[in-house]
Amino acid sequence: MDTISQLLARKSVRRFLQKPVPEDVKQTLLECAAAAPTAGNQQLYAVVDVTDPAIKAELADICDHQGFIADAPIVLVFLADCRRWLDAYALAGCAPRDPGLGDYYIAFCDALIAAQNVVVAAHALGLGSCYIGDIVENRERLVDLLGLDEFTVPATLLVLGYPTAQQLRRRKPARFPLAAVVHTDRYRRLTPDEQKAAFAAKGEAFDTFVPPFCRRKYESAFMAEMTRSMRAYLAPFRG
Amino acid sequence: MDTISQLLARKSVRRFLQKPVPEDVKQTLLECAAAAPTAGNQQLYAVVDVTDPAIKAELADICDHQGFIADAPIVLVFLADCRRWLDAYALAGCAPRDPGLGDYYIAFCDALIAAQNVVVAAHALGLGSCYIGDIVENRERLVDLLGLDEFTVPATLLVLGYPTAQQLRRRKPARFPLAAVVHTDRYRRLTPDEQKAAFAAKGEAFDTFVPPFCRRKYESAFMAEMTRSMRAYLAPFRG
Repeated sequence: MDTISQLLARKSVRRFLQKPVPEDVKQTLLECAAAAPTAGNQQLYAVVDVTDPAIKAELADICDHQGFIADAPIVLVFLADCRRWLDAYALAGCAPRDPGLGDYYIAFCDALIAAQNVVVAAHALGLGSCYIGDIVENRERLVDLLGLDEFTVPATLLVLGYPTAQQLRRRKPARFPLAAVVHTDRYRRLTPDEQKAAFAAKGEAFDTFVPPFCRRKYESAFMAEMTRSMRAYLAPFRG
Repeated sequence: MDTISQLLARKSVRRFLQKPVPEDVKQTLLECAAAAPTAGNQQLYAVVDVTDPAIKAELADICDHQGFIADAPIVLVFLADCRRWLDAYALAGCAPRDPGLGDYYIAFCDALIAAQNVVVAAHALGLGSCYIGDIVENRERLVDLLGLDEFTVPATLLVLGYPTAQQLRRRKPARFPLAAVVHTDRYRRLTPDEQKAAFAAKGEAFDTFVPPFCRRKYESAFMAEMTRSMRAYLAPFRG
């Protein structure tokens, strides 16, 4: 049950000790990424291991100015990579079509699945980790920074390192009851009572928690930027 | 190192014993899904636990006629669910905008990350699993079958059960060398020599392996359908 208890206990870590992560530990993380399930054994992703402090700092700024990204010992950008196989097909004389949204979809899945293997492996090795979805903002700057092209698209960013004592003490936030997210046989919208009960089960008072959360997250400038930038990332896949 | 060796050893399983999975085991899988990292602790996903044999059979047909889906003891559809929070915002009087591609993106990440926790947990509990990306094909039929709306979109499908002896014996396919998928600081396209070496390292002769693979997978009817259907799924998020 060790793996199960690790999956249940793992929480995000955003502050790291200034203690470097040994190269063999990083290597193990990357091997766990590569061992992850992948469509047709294609590994339709790439991982950019960002070691240059100047690139980390620029990434932090691109990702909604989150300074802790610049301070993280390990910074891994997971790309949905439709370019590598496209190049292989061309090299083999196949005259391949351009990738479409279906190709983007399977590459994106591959990248996320590989990233979560890294998160699970990191926890087992005493490392903390945090996903940064803001990596899909500011397409134009990221493309320049990492040398991307129209068929190599960020899927997620992971920062990792040894957690500070404060981060280790932090309580993992409660999740919704399973009944709020698991449906049998068909999807069903929650009733108003079920909605309120789901938040109450987490200790969040619906009427006072939800409206400020909506303003702070859902109606935020970073969500608008994410939508703008994602539209630009997806355009080349729409032919 | 137990978790690490499990991550490295896990392989896809497509044939299952006709041995039911106890309810408490399924419950543990779902709790591991819920414990997964999630943007802003929102759990922007839903899991449809498909138990009805008629629905399983229809899913198998929707997913490129893969019969083993109908025979799997556990069939879980992971949805990127932008509807539940949208309903919560409306219920709290927030007059929320419609979800955009940024919202779709974070919900999609949440769903895939939760799914991979289920895969890892399943392996630890002696269960095999297989991802079915074909779940994004045939949008119109899936929407009807599972009662989806425009803001609840399939992210992936997982089938799970106890592996047959043959599946346990099957060798895990070799992955590309890390050098083919990991880049330092910037993305770099592989040279022709690097491409060929990457396939050779897996035991695949580039010139004879790649062209038929391209015809069978990349130029297949199911990839074309995936692209068509994904375009339909994403349209409501494009405003």
